[in-house]
Order: sequence, then C-alpha cells, then structure tokens
Amino acid sequence: MRPPDELLSYLRNNDHYYLVTHIYPDGDAIGSVLALGEALTEIGKETVLFNKDKVPEYFRFLPYHKLLNHSIPKHGTDKYTLVLIDCNEPDRAAIEEVPFKHSIVIDHHETVSEFGDIKWVAPDAPATGMMIFYLIKSLGVPVTTEMATNLYTAITVDTGTFRHSNTNAETLIVASELIRAGVNPSFIADKLYDSWSKARFNLLIKSLNSLEIYEDVAILIVTERMIQETGATIADTENFVNFPKMMQSINVSVLFREIGVDLWKASLRSRGSVSVSVIAERFGGGGHRNAAGFRVKADIETAKRQLLNNIRNSKKQAPNNN
Amino acid sequence: MRPPDELLSYLRNNDHYYLVTHIYPDGDAIGSVLALGEALTEIGKETVLFNKDKVPEYFRFLPYHKLLNHSIPKHGTDKYTLVLIDCNEPDRAAIEEVPFKHSIVIDHHETVSEFGDIKWVAPDAPATGMMIFYLIKSLGVPVTTEMATNLYTAITVDTGTFRHSNTNAETLIVASELIRAGVNPSFIADKLYDSWSKARFNLLIKSLNSLEIYEDVAILIVTERMIQETGATIADTENFVNFPKMMQSINVSVLFREIGVDLWKASLRSRGSVSVSVIAERFGGGGHRNAAGFRVKADIETAKRQLLNNIRNSKKQAPNNN
Repeated sequence: MRPPDELLSYLRNNDHYYLVTHIYPDGDAIGSVLALGEALTEIGKETVLFNKDKVPEYFRFLPYHKLLNHSIPKHGTDKYTLVLIDCNEPDRAAIEEVPFKHSIVIDHHETVSEFGDIKWVAPDAPATGMMIFYLIKSLGVPVTTEMATNLYTAITVDTGTFRHSNTNAETLIVASELIRAGVNPSFIADKLYDSWSKARFNLLIKSLNSLEIYEDVAILIVTERMIQETGATIADTENFVNFPKMMQSINVSVLFREIGVDLWKASLRSRGSVSVSVIAERFGGGGHRNAAGFRVKADIETAKRQLLNNIRNSKKQAPNNN
Repeated sequence: MRPPDELLSYLRNNDHYYLVTHIYPDGDAIGSVLALGEALTEIGKETVLFNKDKVPEYFRFLPYHKLLNHSIPKHGTDKYTLVLIDCNEPDRAAIEEVPFKHSIVIDHHETVSEFGDIKWVAPDAPATGMMIFYLIKSLGVPVTTEMATNLYTAITVDTGTFRHSNTNAETLIVASELIRAGVNPSFIADKLYDSWSKARFNLLIKSLNSLEIYEDVAILIVTERMIQETGATIADTENFVNFPKMMQSINVSVLFREIGVDLWKASLRSRGSVSVSVIAERFGGGGHRNAAGFRVKADIETAKRQLLNNIRNSKKQAPNNN
C-alpha cells in the first residue's frame, strides 16, 4: 500500500493543516489523527487536531489525546488545508460550515463521496491507521513509540485485535513493526478489554442470568434495578449484547435495557448474513445489517414476544437468510 | 529462535516417533503435536500421535486431529523415540509407565525437569507452536496450510490472539508467515471464541455466579454438579479463568474445578508482573508467571483459604510485585 504521489507532494509543500475525524470517534479515528498530527508536526508543519466529541474514557491512554480540540474558531480556518481522516464527508465530522483552503480525504470506508481535492480511499485497508502508517513512512518520518501506540490501537480496534475477517498477513507485519517501534501489545489490549469496573462485571453477571434462548435468538435484559444494585451505569452495558454470540447456535442476540417505566432500548446483533436492521426498522429504529437498535414502550414480556414474532416473520420472508 | 543442532540431527537420523502432549490438552498442545506430526511424516518418519484425553469439541476443527490416539498399546513402544511436547515430564502426559527408546522434550514452560535425553526448553517462546514452527522450517519442510492452521491456533491460544504479555514482534511475524501459508485468521478466531455450545455458555454463567473477590484476587468454581446440570464437559471450562481479569482491579484470577471427591484442579492467571507460578509450585504445580496451575486435595473452603493465605504471604515477600 502506497499513498498517492499527489498527496505526498502536497503535504511536503504546504504548511498548515486541520486534521479532523468523525463524530462518535472510535480507536481507528482517534489513533490515526493523533499519529499523523505528531508526524506532520515533526516535519515542521502547523497542525490543529479536531474532533467534535470528547475522547471516550477508554481511549484516554492514547499519547497526545489531549491535543484534540473539540471546538473550531469562527474565523481563520481558511488558511488551513483540511485532512479528513477515517470518513469522507464534512458532515460526518460536524464541520460542514467550516471553510478550508483545500481538502484531503484519507479513509478506508467504502461509501462513495465527491468530496475532497485530493482523495486517498483504500477500502482494502483493514484500518485507516494502516494507511497513516504507510503515509508516515513515505514522508520519511521515523515512527516514534507514541505514533506506534496510536496506530497499533487504531489497527487493533478495527480488526478486533486481529480476529475479524479484515485481518491479513500485511496487518500483522505492520503491527510487528509498530511493536519494534515501542508498542506494548498487552498494555493496549489491557486498556481496551480488561479495564472493567467491578460494578460493570457484576452487572454483566446479573444480565447473563436473565438469558433466554428461543431457537437461534438470545435475549438478555438489564433492568434499572440491576444497575442500582451493582452501582454500574447504563453506559457499562456497552458490548453486553455480544456475549451470547459466543454460542455457535445463536444468530441474533438482543439486549433489552430498561430506560423508563415500561420503556426499553433494544440492541440487536447478528451473525454473518443474518440482518437485524430490517427488524429494528419495523420498530421505528435502524442500524446496519449486523448491529441495530430500537426503543419500545411495553412491559418486558410483551416487548420480547413482539420482537420474537417479528424475527420469525422475517425468517419466513427470507428463508435463505438463516 | 533456533532448535538445537542435536535435536535436528536426531530427528533426521531416526525414524520412529511417539509425539505426546499433556493431559487436558489446550490449543498449543494439540496444534503443536499435529503440525510436527505432519512435518515428520512428510520427511518419511513413522509417527504416532498420542494424547490421553479426547480432543475438546472446540479444537475439532484442527486439521488431522483425528490422528490423535487416546490409548497406547501395552507392547512395542520401545522401538519409538518419545517426543514430549508442551510439557516436560511423562506423568503430565499420563505415560509414566510406557517404555521408549529415547526421549526428547520440546516445551516452553519454565518448570525445571531432569527428564529427556534431548531437551529444547525455551521459556521465552510465547507458545510451543512457535518452537515447532522454527523446528519445521529448520528441517526444511514446507509449511502446508494444515500445519499453518495448527500452528496459528497453537500460538493464538497461548497469546490470547496476541493480547497477552508474551506477544512480541516475532510472534506477529511468524503469524503473518502462517497466514501467507493459507491460514484464515477470522475462521480460527470464530472457532476459538464464538463456537461455544449452549451447555458451555450456561456453565460459564453458573461459574460466574460463584465469583468471590478478595482484594485483587477473584475466585471462580466449577463443580461436578454444575457440569451435570448444564450437560457441559470439564474441557468446556477452558478460558473461564480469564473472565474475571476483565476487571481492572483483579490481579489474580483463580478457577477451581472439581475433579473428584474433595479434589480440585486450580488454574491461576495473573496480570503483568504479578507471578502465579511460584504460588502454584508451592502446591506442587507449576506454569508460567501469568498462567499456572496445581491440584489440591481438600474441601473447597479449605482450598480457597490455603490459596489466599499463600497469595498474601507471597505479597509480603515481594511487596513490589503489586
């Protein structure tokens, strides 16, 4: 993978950059911006890093994360070139109103967009962090431990630490180079996967005790009472819905979280070709094929029954999906 | 990492081998035996693969796993050389009564042993599978997709798919070579982490309900009754001990599995610089710094108390460990 010459030459010949990534940033978004920001600064460029949202708690171990700005001044941005990272439209980064001199897009998402004076879009790249790695190398900047930590996090977040189907031999070779540059792989895995509070773990156990299985559908519940009893927060339920998917026979996993009196937020996850976005849409929600959600006003038994009926009906309509 | 010349020369000049690994085999044990078995067969050796226990359900995707024998004939073994893999004493493999011509040990565990005419023990290797990879290369045997799948599984099981502290740049380079040889990384991850039976998942929930926390030590139990009630097997408890380590405050996680009347097998896992091998050794067991085990004959409350006292004492002796 090699960055376009046009991009390299532009970066060498221009001095002022706004590095920007999408709202609700993940590890690939944040790590990529921070690493490229450090590299461009290293070769004498003025860089401003921007992301609209706060850096999530669990990414605050990333070097230089405090350099990320969360607001943009009303004037003066037009002397800067925008580098839009890990997304390809200004509205994904909440900067559609902000004027820039030129614009560069560096992204690995497939979605087609017209935006960008210079575009480097590589859907084959498992993470934007991989692209930033090659860009930094092509600029002749030595990869520091801090850059390596940001890039390794970017790559591992987007590949599930080398477990998802986007993992290939090149991913592991780049990761090995980042380790040689000073990354501590288990430190990063620890931050990403093993930094739960006791309250969160106890909430998971309570939730797992609510497990019900109907054919290939698993249902978990988190009630307000469980949250009170454990001292956890609603945000702690992140990822709970994925646990039942550890079972080979489960194609759809659902988590109902109580968010009011007879008011539930349902998160759905599915395996492979099984789609949950259609089901969520029927309840007025939405999402992607393998991750969707909706809200429902009903007692929990009714909510479950309605959902199961809906899933059964959608199977009848698309028998090949399962 | 390079196998000793003595080992290479022995393997080249002798023709009959029993490749044997430890009881309760994990992915590193089975994958290593299967890959070396294929490689030695490839260069015209007669190999018999033996493991006392059945191959756990979730490792039955491993190529050639059906070649593993689970019993040894009473006569005729003495023309074979024993290759003891991923352990270093015959009793760990339940073959202490079986006569062999010579014996070779290939292991990455730290525990010292006198056994073995030729010994290759590399505690620095994250997995025995890494050693077998270098051994196969040194023997000049091309790595097939089947060998690669067995070795990649061995390495990923022992490194938690590159999340544990034994992961280094070399691990990822070897893994990338195995992918080039035909391994599908997400297929293996799916088999290892998302192919649980319902019985196993229900056993996990029951075991999590036994969770007790003493300062930074978490203890889980799996009783024979739990196994009966869920229809799971003792092998299904693989990896359970790692779940409490998701909590940031837990430095030592212990799983007691009931394997007889007042007889327990304890698996210990620790975080970072906290060592559990010393503790396991005090109970007559052994292992690595972050993963060790032992057996104890006592009722469960006594077993827990003895272990906790031991952990407390070892902290007093090495206060900087925490």
